[in-house]
Amino acid sequence: MAKVQTKRKLRMGMVGGSLEAFIGAVHRKAANLDGEIELVCGAFSSNPDKSKATGAALALPANRVYGSFTEMIEKEKALPEGERMDFVSIVTPNHMHFAPAQLALENGFHVIIDKPLAFNIAEAKTLKKLVEKTGLVFALTHTYTGYPMVKEAKHLIATGALGKVRKVYVEYPQGWLSTYSEGTGNKQASWRTDPSKSGAGGAIGDIGTHAANLAEYITGSDITEICALLNTVVKGRLLDDDSSMLLKFENGSTGSLIATQVAAGEENNLNIRVYGEKGGLEWRQEEPNTLVMKWLDKPKQLLRTGSGYLSDAAKLNTRTPSGHPEGYLEAFANLYMAFGRAVRDYKPGKKVNAAKYDFPDVEDGVKGMAFVDTVIRSSKSNAKWTKVKY
Amino acid sequence: MAKVQTKRKLRMGMVGGSLEAFIGAVHRKAANLDGEIELVCGAFSSNPDKSKATGAALALPANRVYGSFTEMIEKEKALPEGERMDFVSIVTPNHMHFAPAQLALENGFHVIIDKPLAFNIAEAKTLKKLVEKTGLVFALTHTYTGYPMVKEAKHLIATGALGKVRKVYVEYPQGWLSTYSEGTGNKQASWRTDPSKSGAGGAIGDIGTHAANLAEYITGSDITEICALLNTVVKGRLLDDDSSMLLKFENGSTGSLIATQVAAGEENNLNIRVYGEKGGLEWRQEEPNTLVMKWLDKPKQLLRTGSGYLSDAAKLNTRTPSGHPEGYLEAFANLYMAFGRAVRDYKPGKKVNAAKYDFPDVEDGVKGMAFVDTVIRSSKSNAKWTKVKY
Amino acid sequence: MAKVQTKRKLRMGMVGGSLEAFIGAVHRKAANLDGEIELVCGAFSSNPDKSKATGAALALPANRVYGSFTEMIEKEKALPEGERMDFVSIVTPNHMHFAPAQLALENGFHVIIDKPLAFNIAEAKTLKKLVEKTGLVFALTHTYTGYPMVKEAKHLIATGALGKVRKVYVEYPQGWLSTYSEGTGNKQASWRTDPSKSGAGGAIGDIGTHAANLAEYITGSDITEICALLNTVVKGRLLDDDSSMLLKFENGSTGSLIATQVAAGEENNLNIRVYGEKGGLEWRQEEPNTLVMKWLDKPKQLLRTGSGYLSDAAKLNTRTPSGHPEGYLEAFANLYMAFGRAVRDYKPGKKVNAAKYDFPDVEDGVKGMAFVDTVIRSSKSNAKWTKVKY
Amino acid sequence: MAKVQTKRKLRMGMVGGSLEAFIGAVHRKAANLDGEIELVCGAFSSNPDKSKATGAALALPANRVYGSFTEMIEKEKALPEGERMDFVSIVTPNHMHFAPAQLALENGFHVIIDKPLAFNIAEAKTLKKLVEKTGLVFALTHTYTGYPMVKEAKHLIATGALGKVRKVYVEYPQGWLSTYSEGTGNKQASWRTDPSKSGAGGAIGDIGTHAANLAEYITGSDITEICALLNTVVKGRLLDDDSSMLLKFENGSTGSLIATQVAAGEENNLNIRVYGEKGGLEWRQEEPNTLVMKWLDKPKQLLRTGSGYLSDAAKLNTRTPSGHPEGYLEAFANLYMAFGRAVRDYKPGKKVNAAKYDFPDVEDGVKGMAFVDTVIRSSKSNAKWTKVKY
Repeated sequence: MAKVQTKRKLRMGMVGGSLEAFIGAVHRKAANLDGEIELVCGAFSSNPDKSKATGAALALPANRVYGSFTEMIEKEKALPEGERMDFVSIVTPNHMHFAPAQLALENGFHVIIDKPLAFNIAEAKTLKKLVEKTGLVFALTHTYTGYPMVKEAKHLIATGALGKVRKVYVEYPQGWLSTYSEGTGNKQASWRTDPSKSGAGGAIGDIGTHAANLAEYITGSDITEICALLNTVVKGRLLDDDSSMLLKFENGSTGSLIATQVAAGEENNLNIRVYGEKGGLEWRQEEPNTLVMKWLDKPKQLLRTGSGYLSDAAKLNTRTPSGHPEGYLEAFANLYMAFGRAVRDYKPGKKVNAAKYDFPDVEDGVKGMAFVDTVIRSSKSNAKWTKVKY
Repeated sequence: MAKVQTKRKLRMGMVGGSLEAFIGAVHRKAANLDGEIELVCGAFSSNPDKSKATGAALALPANRVYGSFTEMIEKEKALPEGERMDFVSIVTPNHMHFAPAQLALENGFHVIIDKPLAFNIAEAKTLKKLVEKTGLVFALTHTYTGYPMVKEAKHLIATGALGKVRKVYVEYPQGWLSTYSEGTGNKQASWRTDPSKSGAGGAIGDIGTHAANLAEYITGSDITEICALLNTVVKGRLLDDDSSMLLKFENGSTGSLIATQVAAGEENNLNIRVYGEKGGLEWRQEEPNTLVMKWLDKPKQLLRTGSGYLSDAAKLNTRTPSGHPEGYLEAFANLYMAFGRAVRDYKPGKKVNAAKYDFPDVEDGVKGMAFVDTVIRSSKSNAKWTKVKY
Repeated sequence: MAKVQTKRKLRMGMVGGSLEAFIGAVHRKAANLDGEIELVCGAFSSNPDKSKATGAALALPANRVYGSFTEMIEKEKALPEGERMDFVSIVTPNHMHFAPAQLALENGFHVIIDKPLAFNIAEAKTLKKLVEKTGLVFALTHTYTGYPMVKEAKHLIATGALGKVRKVYVEYPQGWLSTYSEGTGNKQASWRTDPSKSGAGGAIGDIGTHAANLAEYITGSDITEICALLNTVVKGRLLDDDSSMLLKFENGSTGSLIATQVAAGEENNLNIRVYGEKGGLEWRQEEPNTLVMKWLDKPKQLLRTGSGYLSDAAKLNTRTPSGHPEGYLEAFANLYMAFGRAVRDYKPGKKVNAAKYDFPDVEDGVKGMAFVDTVIRSSKSNAKWTKVKY
Repeated sequence: MAKVQTKRKLRMGMVGGSLEAFIGAVHRKAANLDGEIELVCGAFSSNPDKSKATGAALALPANRVYGSFTEMIEKEKALPEGERMDFVSIVTPNHMHFAPAQLALENGFHVIIDKPLAFNIAEAKTLKKLVEKTGLVFALTHTYTGYPMVKEAKHLIATGALGKVRKVYVEYPQGWLSTYSEGTGNKQASWRTDPSKSGAGGAIGDIGTHAANLAEYITGSDITEICALLNTVVKGRLLDDDSSMLLKFENGSTGSLIATQVAAGEENNLNIRVYGEKGGLEWRQEEPNTLVMKWLDKPKQLLRTGSGYLSDAAKLNTRTPSGHPEGYLEAFANLYMAFGRAVRDYKPGKKVNAAKYDFPDVEDGVKGMAFVDTVIRSSKSNAKWTKVKY
């Protein structure tokens, strides 16, 4: 038998994600799942005590728990190669995305970052240039593209199963902001409805960007023009909490997008339907392991995660046989898995091909910021159509 | 025991609906179902042989099968009261709605007519005036408002179960016009895509009017402004086969409407979702016996046709206990049942209250034509919003 | 053009089905739907006043409303051929099935009758002999075999789509007898739980026979051995209200059957699953327009009522295009339609082939009574298996 | 701020679970997910090269990868306390459960082990005694009881929401053994259908035990008598691949259980329905985040994972807000989480209360083996009922 090479786990440092935050824990579990990534350090909060408490609860040694991301990046950089973190995971609110991302890249660390990419489009473009300049691996966690049946949908459209795409309907209805919960101390509500933390978009940034990204990912075609109605439904709220819009796509198809956080009673009902000449497909995030295929003159089909007849892309992103439901954390873990593969393959000077590894990257991040910007411009305009620009 | 009064069946004459037509047979079955209406005569086709063959197949005596609606109305009028038809059912293509409706009203016959009301808004308004002038009973078969769970949805919103309505999403995707089937002899496709028969609207008239009517019926609020994208997706087609639009409602809520006949693989997937301050509701025509209620802080509920906890309006329109599915023909029969009640109660000089009997009337028909007109105006305009006018 | 032959409606007389009864109205609506059958007379109740009131409400002339079925059969027989009823529809409680059926057959009238066929197996066998002797058309309304997708399921199995059948699971859970409702004046509950009216079986006769019939119809194979657990769950009840059993079929397959009326919260959830070597199928009465096909190495399929790809048998029993839901009354009407075809084709001396016309007949009725008998014998036996005998 | 105590990860050693095995990887991901357990060593295969290759792929240092479980237990025991494993995870085929479990317990290691507990009931009882004697923490991975909505179902029944339980229907249909796949090199099929590896039960042991455990867990009542039909459907197979049975429960309720691996086209469709006096509940593993509640006189409800209205038990076993689907790996991780809590709380001499920590234990394992034994005895008996004994 040939000598066996022991694999090493990738070492992750985290910025943000203290014990009381929501998305930080999700990132950690996603990173943990496959046993290929190890959390080695973190600057979990701008409050040093919170950061320490979080690190301790996560079984980190005290000397790898930092009071700030600047300290973390500086000190980790100084550690020997076999010990220092390989990449930074950034899970702060939107207004604190840019600075740690920039610093990490400038100091040679790969980055995986929660969406939306930045506070505004200018920051996004700066990061894009920096990623291009440094050549480092940079992933954006548009979670929902991590689902196996989303991969299958993309594959089926790319290989012509539906014929030319004609219609794209994507929706992201939630109900959790139906009341003025930012006024009652709900931490998640507070920063997401605060323009100084969330950026210019409310629902449109928080979930609209996911919907737009999902549509573009599955169809392989960009949104080019938008006709938007943007509302602030709940009194006293400072940002939009509801939107509907008509869409035109690069490939000539048209459609619509709904992103709302005041659809009372809805949980996290992201869904998409695409129709082409020969048939259509439908996927719903709340039952993510079924992809419904509708055909012109044949019975509908239910394609199911883990089945032998699926594409390689779907299979690569599945951990269990069909009938063993995979969910949100597995989809999230798929992004970390793809990012991790790119990090392992990374060679200085060699361009990273995000599409090959199949993770959302800084380009998707810029598009997301442009989407927010275009929707806001459209909503203020009396003209029917507003072009996406960036 | 008191003397029993023998009920008499209402006598129906039909215009259109030859053996090869689709909707005529539907009307007849709907009228038959409850055993309270009897088909006594018809002018089933402009081709007298076809009309005769249809009448014979329907067990009508030859002398009650007419070569034209003018002949029918004239001769029936001359029959003694206990024999002549009570009302006319008009089931011709759109361009042949107006003339028989007008003549029937002018000669004292009540009318039930397929939608859309007329060929254009001018005809619609003329009919409205005539209905008002004659005081006769006039119903328009917006079938989908006949479903018990649609009645329940209307009831729940009217009684405040959802609080103030905020969002209305209504969709009517079909796929049957995904190819150029009017070029291959499909009779249904041919007239519906022919502007000289269908009117100015294609999909927007055929199914868009149903969707708009459903939204207005359930919410009790009218659409006031529209921002529409209207497409002719299939090459060679003469009318629109696809539309998406943003909506504003009288009550301040907003929403969207999709009406398309090129959603390949879709059957007849009319559906609506309404969200208010406290919760939302969802109804899908293809599974019409379930009304999904979604609540802010409580479990979702499934309300089911035939259940004891439903409103009187739902119960009145149900024939069997819960778990015995009722469908499209039952919904259609509910319109005939409501119309029939009004006809039985009719007294010359007394205004008919369509809302009390709960059937769509000539006013709904005018609104439908105005909807088609507004969508077309909007689709040609670069302005974002176009007001509904009629 | 050839001379057109005017069709005549079949003339139906009804035994039972007064205004307050449940199943009588269902039979009438089913018979009405297609406009090919006309109710001409009835003996709706053993109470003459109730019978008269029912006849009057149904727009029957007073002289065709009878005080008893004996009177009806005698007087109708005396009417001229073009006027007297063609067949009798019997919709009385079980203990009053036999006498009118026997008298009708003996006097030359075809019969359509509600299930179960009779009060006991002896009556059932007598009726069978009489049907054979008279050669008249005799149908039993096992409603659920009237659904188009049940026809499709039968067709698929008969043509080998699943390969050899291995497993059959059929269930009929209802919840409406979860409490002692016969003690609170519920008329339906009262007679169905009364051994003097219902016969030896409670739930097993009322709904178990439907489930057994459905399994035998779809698979084309008879139940040969039963291992049953029969319960009376609700205190004070006189008949069984719950049963579970293991089954062996003639074709070597095995399975199970559940028939219960104490599954609190269930409506009318009859369902069946059949698995063969290559795949399985699943049908649920509460969503009757979808037949789920499950395959070994291919995506699941949803076959839908009204689709072009279905069998002739499914199409013959469908009235509207796909996406226009058909329900319980349409399924029931399909039995009347098939029975009606046989009546129209009837020639004295020529044997009626029920399978060709595709309606449940007296043989199914005898099997149903044997099923009830076998379940009761099995439930009292300590032996595991009890053979079906009749 | 008080001094923060750094948490330490629990150290896991694994027996079995080489790279090509199925369930080993599942255990590892489940253990990884929450970042509280660290795999520190393993004896992954009886083939030392395979064991080494697996260890290397899992980033284990070579000196912690062992050639056998005996070596592992011996050498780990010799390591200092802060380094040696805390517990053993046993993921071998059934015939290799007993020996490592016994040795681990005898050497003071806690054990978590895949189901069924052992090769036969004798082994199971021996392990039970050993667990009682040593007082160590011992968990059995009946995965499906780890789902939050299963916890909720148990809670609702325990707190009387359904009233007295009357009926229990549990099913576990799979289709993956529909063909003779053990003859074509399918590794999973080979050992599971081999009596020398699987034990006396085929499907009944592999999945029947899960179904029985789920029913007992949710209802809080034990199965006391069984009437079983056990089949080997596929020719050449050495163990049962199909079973149906009637059940009696300790609390007086009755029901049925189906466990089959020849339901062609089924994936992993474990499901349970329980009915009581006031209503029923339904849970399906393939859509695990919805618990359907059915009520006598109220609308059905859909209870959803992650919702605020759920019980503490459901919430404790949930990681994300409602609408973010959790699946099989999360359910599995819940078992590791509960086991881990008990291990952390462990104090020599203090009895471990598995019910408090809410994980399946050695007692459940003994019951599972007794279930297999009883089903086999029943299937060979002509008597209707066979008592569960152990």
